[in-house]
Amino acid sequence: MEFKDAVLKRRMVRNFADKAVDKQTIERIVDLTRHAPSAGFTQGQAFIIVTDANTRRAVAQTCEEEEYVKGGFDPFISKAPVLLIPCTSEIAYHRRYQQADKVDEQGNEIEWPVPYWFMDAGCAAMLALLAVVDEGLVGAFVGSKDLKALRALLNIPDEVTPVGVIAVGYRAEDKRSPSLKRGRKPDAEYVHYEKW
Amino acid sequence: MEFKDAVLKRRMVRNFADKAVDKQTIERIVDLTRHAPSAGFTQGQAFIIVTDANTRRAVAQTCEEEEYVKGGFDPFISKAPVLLIPCTSEIAYHRRYQQADKVDEQGNEIEWPVPYWFMDAGCAAMLALLAVVDEGLVGAFVGSKDLKALRALLNIPDEVTPVGVIAVGYRAEDKRSPSLKRGRKPDAEYVHYEKW
Repeated sequence: MEFKDAVLKRRMVRNFADKAVDKQTIERIVDLTRHAPSAGFTQGQAFIIVTDANTRRAVAQTCEEEEYVKGGFDPFISKAPVLLIPCTSEIAYHRRYQQADKVDEQGNEIEWPVPYWFMDAGCAAMLALLAVVDEGLVGAFVGSKDLKALRALLNIPDEVTPVGVIAVGYRAEDKRSPSLKRGRKPDAEYVHYEKW
Repeated sequence: MEFKDAVLKRRMVRNFADKAVDKQTIERIVDLTRHAPSAGFTQGQAFIIVTDANTRRAVAQTCEEEEYVKGGFDPFISKAPVLLIPCTSEIAYHRRYQQADKVDEQGNEIEWPVPYWFMDAGCAAMLALLAVVDEGLVGAFVGSKDLKALRALLNIPDEVTPVGVIAVGYRAEDKRSPSLKRGRKPDAEYVHYEKW
């Protein structure tokens, strides 16, 4: 698929057909996310692939799926045949920036102006969402409301942050997010020329 | 260009030919970034497009370009004909999540498990970096070390965070990042099946 078409076609689809996604397809999607950039080539990102039905239901619980259902959505998180959990690790960045080629003349780590571990996780999640479309599938990103429960469920180390859940599958008729009714922010607030 | 090719071709290129990029091309790139997702459709992201040579030099200073030059790189930030400054606004997310459709039954904003304003900025930056490649250009993301100076220079409101600088232009021979010598993280540390 053309790059522009993948970007323009992509939207959060919150329902999935009852149809499995084959393992090779999922591996191609996750493999492509390895091309996301990372500060200092830290590669602090990681993914967990969840397909087990019981685990999917438990992950969905940490995302408060029942609140979506109350709002008229399908139980799309537990229904999705595949859940991808993008993760990041702040401490991996500190370790990287304490290495000899990154510290200052006094041997100190930089002051971080921005938590690049979260930006880099965003880059990887964006690639996953586009790769899903490129494979003819649909996806929806949701936040988990209980990272402690999610960590316990998936055996995620304390130093790793699961930044959310990407539900992936074949398209089914869905209800659009009511947030879209807000409309697009005016161009003049989005693009600034030379100065803000 | 095929989506996969854009992803596979993209890398940080830290040198640029002495050749301007036309305004329409830059606008297509920034326009495509509007398709990045955002929590609650907050659309907290924004971009500043800088082409003025004096401003580019001043932006490059906040990125400590001289340190790159000491490390054997070209002064690629000030040399780039275009600098894109992706921005995000944490407060925009709080405002959005204090609206009636987002607060809980007691009228309270959610507890944020993850600073999605930075992840969403990462999504927009990822789209910009890919769109650059799709347009036959190259780009490099760098952090600014002095957000206070960058804000003052570009008239950026205090509540907006410029998360970095994407230098964009036509390719010139470049020096690769020494960080790449670290090599790729083993697959087993990147992809986890069912559990970490």
